[in-house]
Amino acid sequence: MDLKSLPFQQIQTIFSEAQKIKSNKNSTISFSGETIALLFFEASTRTRLSFETAAFRLGLGPLLLDGGVKSSLEKGESIEDSILNVAAMHPRFLVVRCGDSFDLSGLAKKIQIPLINAGWGVKGHPTQALLDIFTMQESLGDLSGKKILFVGDIRHSRVAASHFELADVLKTQMAVCCPPEFLPENNKLKIFENLNEALAWADVVMTLRCQFERHQSGFKIFSAQDYRKNYGLNQTRLQKLHAKALIMHPGPINHGIELESEVLQDSRCRVLEQVSNGVYVRQATLRLMLEGKL
Amino acid sequence: MDLKSLPFQQIQTIFSEAQKIKSNKNSTISFSGETIALLFFEASTRTRLSFETAAFRLGLGPLLLDGGVKSSLEKGESIEDSILNVAAMHPRFLVVRCGDSFDLSGLAKKIQIPLINAGWGVKGHPTQALLDIFTMQESLGDLSGKKILFVGDIRHSRVAASHFELADVLKTQMAVCCPPEFLPENNKLKIFENLNEALAWADVVMTLRCQFERHQSGFKIFSAQDYRKNYGLNQTRLQKLHAKALIMHPGPINHGIELESEVLQDSRCRVLEQVSNGVYVRQATLRLMLEGKL
Amino acid sequence: MDLKSLPFQQIQTIFSEAQKIKSNKNSTISFSGETIALLFFEASTRTRLSFETAAFRLGLGPLLLDGGVKSSLEKGESIEDSILNVAAMHPRFLVVRCGDSFDLSGLAKKIQIPLINAGWGVKGHPTQALLDIFTMQESLGDLSGKKILFVGDIRHSRVAASHFELADVLKTQMAVCCPPEFLPENNKLKIFENLNEALAWADVVMTLRCQFERHQSGFKIFSAQDYRKNYGLNQTRLQKLHAKALIMHPGPINHGIELESEVLQDSRCRVLEQVSNGVYVRQATLRLMLEGKL
Repeated sequence: MDLKSLPFQQIQTIFSEAQKIKSNKNSTISFSGETIALLFFEASTRTRLSFETAAFRLGLGPLLLDGGVKSSLEKGESIEDSILNVAAMHPRFLVVRCGDSFDLSGLAKKIQIPLINAGWGVKGHPTQALLDIFTMQESLGDLSGKKILFVGDIRHSRVAASHFELADVLKTQMAVCCPPEFLPENNKLKIFENLNEALAWADVVMTLRCQFERHQSGFKIFSAQDYRKNYGLNQTRLQKLHAKALIMHPGPINHGIELESEVLQDSRCRVLEQVSNGVYVRQATLRLMLEGKL
Repeated sequence: MDLKSLPFQQIQTIFSEAQKIKSNKNSTISFSGETIALLFFEASTRTRLSFETAAFRLGLGPLLLDGGVKSSLEKGESIEDSILNVAAMHPRFLVVRCGDSFDLSGLAKKIQIPLINAGWGVKGHPTQALLDIFTMQESLGDLSGKKILFVGDIRHSRVAASHFELADVLKTQMAVCCPPEFLPENNKLKIFENLNEALAWADVVMTLRCQFERHQSGFKIFSAQDYRKNYGLNQTRLQKLHAKALIMHPGPINHGIELESEVLQDSRCRVLEQVSNGVYVRQATLRLMLEGKL
Repeated sequence: MDLKSLPFQQIQTIFSEAQKIKSNKNSTISFSGETIALLFFEASTRTRLSFETAAFRLGLGPLLLDGGVKSSLEKGESIEDSILNVAAMHPRFLVVRCGDSFDLSGLAKKIQIPLINAGWGVKGHPTQALLDIFTMQESLGDLSGKKILFVGDIRHSRVAASHFELADVLKTQMAVCCPPEFLPENNKLKIFENLNEALAWADVVMTLRCQFERHQSGFKIFSAQDYRKNYGLNQTRLQKLHAKALIMHPGPINHGIELESEVLQDSRCRVLEQVSNGVYVRQATLRLMLEGKL
């Protein structure tokens, strides 16, 4: 699934299916006895469980490579070999999370089975972006012209990367507010230096995880406390945000860095709604692909 | 599920359902497409597999956080955040094992989804106690007045803690026999200093694991061999036990410490029956909760 | 399942069922609500996923001990105790991978539940041998008199061990070509010192993984590069192989040691077909056992 080539109409088809699933909550199982491979060459919990939930609701048996994958990799098997081998067992989908260095789109061309990107290094995380957009549309309606602000480690965020790909299709306005070291290489973005001004501008504030674990040693030129002071969300700062604006975070959250725990109690916060919607959007995507409608 | 507030009648409802499942062995599946989250923040094998078996028999898809949970926790996510996130994916149950320091009952009040304690530090392990009681009732009938002897690391045993909570409801007599360091803080218990006298008294001898892995260094003031000599079960000692008394252990067993392997061959031993019954009791509990009868 | 006592006719029954599954690709689910235990005390990815796929297609819920098994083993539980405990939860099958030192056939006699060997030290890996034979028969028809050449670490290969057991039943001819350190203790085998001569002889060349991870330190008296030079398959060497001969490998492959990546593109190569057939053969075996026909 390549977001850049996903037309607006198809996104709305997914969302309309997701909305249907969400209202009924009660989907018929159609694909019992079939499988879906969830191959996480990089760690994941929520994305894996979200796809797994969607799978069970469709009757698909999840084949999991997670900790397990290590065993083959330890025996010297490449990621490509691992995926080709699992593909030879004919699951209906290959859901893959891997690092930047692996040529995921090259591999997708070699195999017949639909390959779904579940987080590819810093390149993208399309289903996360889709569920975010779905969550925004639920509260804000048509997103055309809406102002989306990213606060956090935008340069290292595959979620942000996928959102930037969708901006042209959805005709949203995008801005960022972050330390210079976190700025992405993307000239189309509006840049705010002051968080309060940025919050006053935004219809949605998407906070992003400070991925300290991805930073090279020596890279940390500012501390978590500096970050919190200048870019962390708290009740005081949220007074600048419109009454109908949304607060989001793709998780996992560093409490007391990107945001204070009190922020999660704010009525504008959609963090857990994002998680719930993730299942609906993924289930809708899988179902439409299984039915040949996507 | 709080054992202290679980009335005698409800316990018998669970057991009667479990007995029905056990006799038919052949339960209809009713909840296909739904999920159950098994969140083991502390290691488990048998409890996890027991719940998983019960889940599959009901058609519930198990969502497992086990080794996997580490990935999010490594990213700095708290146990509470992990559980809230999984809850947002709307499983039918949250089955949780965690340490004492986590406020499991506090969390249970915050979420709508039934939260089942699958081992909470040394505080309790209610489904294990229920399956033990079910196993006792199968052989001994009504337990009122029956004498249950605990031998082993009672102070560090969440299984014992749950049994002590049930004693008032079931009107059982409880005694302990163990090194002073393993004595619990519970004044209602009869204490035996001599194992042979204790065995002669008991209708059930529940041996408990010496959880050496939970002991602080420096705490081991006696060796495994000392323990075996004074408190370990073997064929000679079992001659003191009534012909119709039961030998139990919640596992995993330290062979040659709590008991010699020969003990498992004794006709009074119910160790593997406990494991079998664990599935029936858990399946019964889940089914009754799903049907709104518990 | 003991290959030495598996009659030719039963092997063909399995294969005929596997062929039926492969042509329809669309098997009805019959055993929903039942479980299959996959107990991997040694690491596996492809065998585990292959059995798991077969399980889902039959409606069996897979109970996995993998990384998870460590938790009980860390608590000091023996492999035998682990298996007996899982058996007490009444799965329909116990699929076990373990080391040589564990007495798997001794245990099989103690339990009522069918125990399937999924890789037992260097002793055998029967379902791998069956899927290999199935793959050979698909291309070559009746194997009686056919020439099967093993190249690689034959002494440490449980796959080869299982094939040698089947040779008498199938009336195949077996030869080996490998460094002297890799020669098995089996006098019936034809030995080739020169790989080109061996390839000219063979109807099937079964390359085997150099299990460097199993070798004791000090054992490596030749390097991976020496091995590649003398025993590695590449396009030049494959010119010696008959046009209708088959190239196989049970995986995982050490690229550039047992074979060059180019070999996988050769039209005689059946490596991924082996993986696909593994699911069919295992599904057929499980189904026939469930139906009491095996």
